[in-house]
Amino acid sequence: MRAVVHVTLKKTVLDPQGRTIRSALNNFGYTRVQDVRQGKFFEIEFEQGTDATEAEAEAQKFAHDVLANPVIEEFTVEFQE
Amino acid sequence: MRAVVHVTLKKTVLDPQGRTIRSALNNFGYTRVQDVRQGKFFEIEFEQGTDATEAEAEAQKFAHDVLANPVIEEFTVEFQE
Repeated sequence: MRAVVHVTLKKTVLDPQGRTIRSALNNFGYTRVQDVRQGKFFEIEFEQGTDATEAEAEAQKFAHDVLANPVIEEFTVEFQE
Repeated sequence: MRAVVHVTLKKTVLDPQGRTIRSALNNFGYTRVQDVRQGKFFEIEFEQGTDATEAEAEAQKFAHDVLANPVIEEFTVEFQE
């Protein structure tokens, strides 16, 4: 069972890295790119036989406590399979 | 129109950051986590009225040329809306 956690800066938080990438793309000639936001994601493989409900609860908890900084970032957790 | 580009290390390339995160999670008590791989993603907003086929072609091109390092990384491009 695999969880995918996406972490991104909150919409209200300035994303200087995204801005820089947008400028770079514009300078490379991709002038129709208007906005870029960068985030990170984690593919997390659980042991075989892990209960789906427990895995879901654990993933929500460690995404909040370890992978994201909830002050400035938001996250989503999805399961595959 | 929005493209989402996911960039991740190729499966054959060691991901030391993912390893470190796995160890951290295991140490925090999430012992059923067996493997973690980290990647980055980019949400790219195109100008309104951009032709979908052109946007798709551009996104594939700049994902390959700018956002990812195809020697060690692989990427996917998806469109939303």
